[in-house]
Amino acid sequence: MRVAIPKERAPRENRIAAVPASVKTFIDWEWDVAVETGAGVAAGYPDGAFIDTGATIVPNAVTAHDADLVLRVGPPTHDEIALLHAGSVLCGFLDPFVATDLVDALAQQNVTAVAVEAIPRISVAQSMDALSSQQNVAGYAAVLLAADAAPKFLPMLVTAAGTIPPARALVLGVGVAGLQAIATFKRLGAVVHAYDIRPETKEQVESLGAKFVEAPTQAADEGGYATEVDADTAARQQEVLATFVADADVIVTTAQIPGRPAPQLITEEMITPMHPGSVIVDMAASTGGNVAGSRPDEIINVGGVAIYGPTDLPSRVATDASRMYARNLQEIANRMRTDAGITIDLDDDVIGPATITHEGSIVNPRTRSVMGLDEEGS
Amino acid sequence: MRVAIPKERAPRENRIAAVPASVKTFIDWEWDVAVETGAGVAAGYPDGAFIDTGATIVPNAVTAHDADLVLRVGPPTHDEIALLHAGSVLCGFLDPFVATDLVDALAQQNVTAVAVEAIPRISVAQSMDALSSQQNVAGYAAVLLAADAAPKFLPMLVTAAGTIPPARALVLGVGVAGLQAIATFKRLGAVVHAYDIRPETKEQVESLGAKFVEAPTQAADEGGYATEVDADTAARQQEVLATFVADADVIVTTAQIPGRPAPQLITEEMITPMHPGSVIVDMAASTGGNVAGSRPDEIINVGGVAIYGPTDLPSRVATDASRMYARNLQEIANRMRTDAGITIDLDDDVIGPATITHEGSIVNPRTRSVMGLDEEGS
Repeated sequence: MRVAIPKERAPRENRIAAVPASVKTFIDWEWDVAVETGAGVAAGYPDGAFIDTGATIVPNAVTAHDADLVLRVGPPTHDEIALLHAGSVLCGFLDPFVATDLVDALAQQNVTAVAVEAIPRISVAQSMDALSSQQNVAGYAAVLLAADAAPKFLPMLVTAAGTIPPARALVLGVGVAGLQAIATFKRLGAVVHAYDIRPETKEQVESLGAKFVEAPTQAADEGGYATEVDADTAARQQEVLATFVADADVIVTTAQIPGRPAPQLITEEMITPMHPGSVIVDMAASTGGNVAGSRPDEIINVGGVAIYGPTDLPSRVATDASRMYARNLQEIANRMRTDAGITIDLDDDVIGPATITHEGSIVNPRTRSVMGLDEEGS
Repeated sequence: MRVAIPKERAPRENRIAAVPASVKTFIDWEWDVAVETGAGVAAGYPDGAFIDTGATIVPNAVTAHDADLVLRVGPPTHDEIALLHAGSVLCGFLDPFVATDLVDALAQQNVTAVAVEAIPRISVAQSMDALSSQQNVAGYAAVLLAADAAPKFLPMLVTAAGTIPPARALVLGVGVAGLQAIATFKRLGAVVHAYDIRPETKEQVESLGAKFVEAPTQAADEGGYATEVDADTAARQQEVLATFVADADVIVTTAQIPGRPAPQLITEEMITPMHPGSVIVDMAASTGGNVAGSRPDEIINVGGVAIYGPTDLPSRVATDASRMYARNLQEIANRMRTDAGITIDLDDDVIGPATITHEGSIVNPRTRSVMGLDEEGS
């Protein structure tokens, strides 16, 4: 049984899918571990740290995809897919409901693709929930980015030259990222308001010492995710939010609706009354944006208000993001582990839903639906 | 009585020497206030905010130096000095013990130069202590910079995917900036160690919840400032500090010795064992550096350790740094204020020591000494 960890080659990606602690676990399982040279450097894990645990350093992408199990952070390119063995298992963020060309290629290559995005949010799978672990890191990084960019103190400051009041922070969207953003803003001493369309988030917001913005709420879907609102509700939502947006010094937005573009919560008209120097970090910039005018990986200045659209937030805290992600993958690997190495059980509550391709076929129902594979006549 | 506030033109300088609150006070004193157009924009104070208080917006540097009292952040250029009236008062950071060519030019222009660096640290002058207010901001900004740059979480994080231990922070030099750095690292949840050569800082460090590093200490001078150590003490200091430096994830250094280059506290040999991804912010980079290899306004990478040498830290928090600085200048102006406008009293405990040039002469003893003006035969 051989597991390999290639170097991530996507721009701004500093993470790695294994860290010395997870590699040590694989070695304890008597697996061979191959790490591509330099793969951990940007995350603070030099080759030597992996060698110390008993891993082999391999020289390039070819050798780092030559294994029974390949662990990645982001999706492979078509060239990288071509390096994977028939019958091998690939595990990582594979964007399986959007990047359907990659899914097709993985099926044709006869690779079993396990997408961490599709790990169900059930309690037995908590330790494998990479989406949560990385969103947690992202919420922290978004606040640090906002705090560093803001021309104001976040905490209150009492000095001989007068008192500086605490900054006013606003968090929109209270999932894992939003909760961590609230906690981090609170740590830094800001006065924090937060809002989410799902009514059950109010208690969570208040338990962190923040105030819940009383805009319209709407029940979540059975998965606990936000649902789309009608135009009338959106208008009432924006009306209430407008005051809080205008007063805020720092804003982090995290709202997502699965399978839909992110909801626009802050319109151009809501930005105009904000005071110059205010900072907005839109964590949904790559899926349409919660904020009018935000763009992925750009900083847009609207009348002195800086709107950031970072898509690399977990990667900015690469040491710990990798550590948490590597632990998620280790738990997933452990779930698949048998005496023979690893075995894919499509009936397993965790691995089944996360398996996208297997034995040359596209097996995930949602991916099949997105690709129109089960439609009549197809 | 007319006071003017020019736009700062130095690179990376976002601050302004007045804010609407201080301008309003001047207006209440029945002073005319002229603000150069755009002077407050980078700090988040647009022209309109000054107009609302009753100030006049003037179009350029010429009109913004045409006043009885000119308030600045950084030192003027020779061209700007030429714009000042004979008999007018200039107040700001003037670098009066180093930039002696400017001091000469100010004396020749018959300008009274009041340097905020030379305001004595006595209790009656606390509200005028611009060095302290800006160092306070700088200490905060240094930690935000370090935290944003670090690839690690500062707080401890307990998640389903394991526990991330808190980051280890080290603060060297515990003056105003160091104390604020400790407080900010503590807010962010880091484990903080701190050290200063002056023994009385131990209690201050501990009162903030940080641990004092038990390296050699040495009594401060009568002004409360650190004094230079001999080679033997420096060696023992570095020996103790080496362990803490090697273990640290984030380091902020703030050590200064008045009138001397900053002491080198972290040598190249001490950086080598640090783990890759560690971040050092050297706040003394422009005065020689506390850290081997640091350079002003650059980021140096030494074996994966990033060494920052920012010289613009207060300017990064320009809204509040300006607010505090403007309040310092307002208190200084109030100290000089008489029925006639302002009067320089060289016998005043605060204004006397801070006055560098007056009625065509260089009057500050320390500046005179640096310039060799009182030496026999000169």
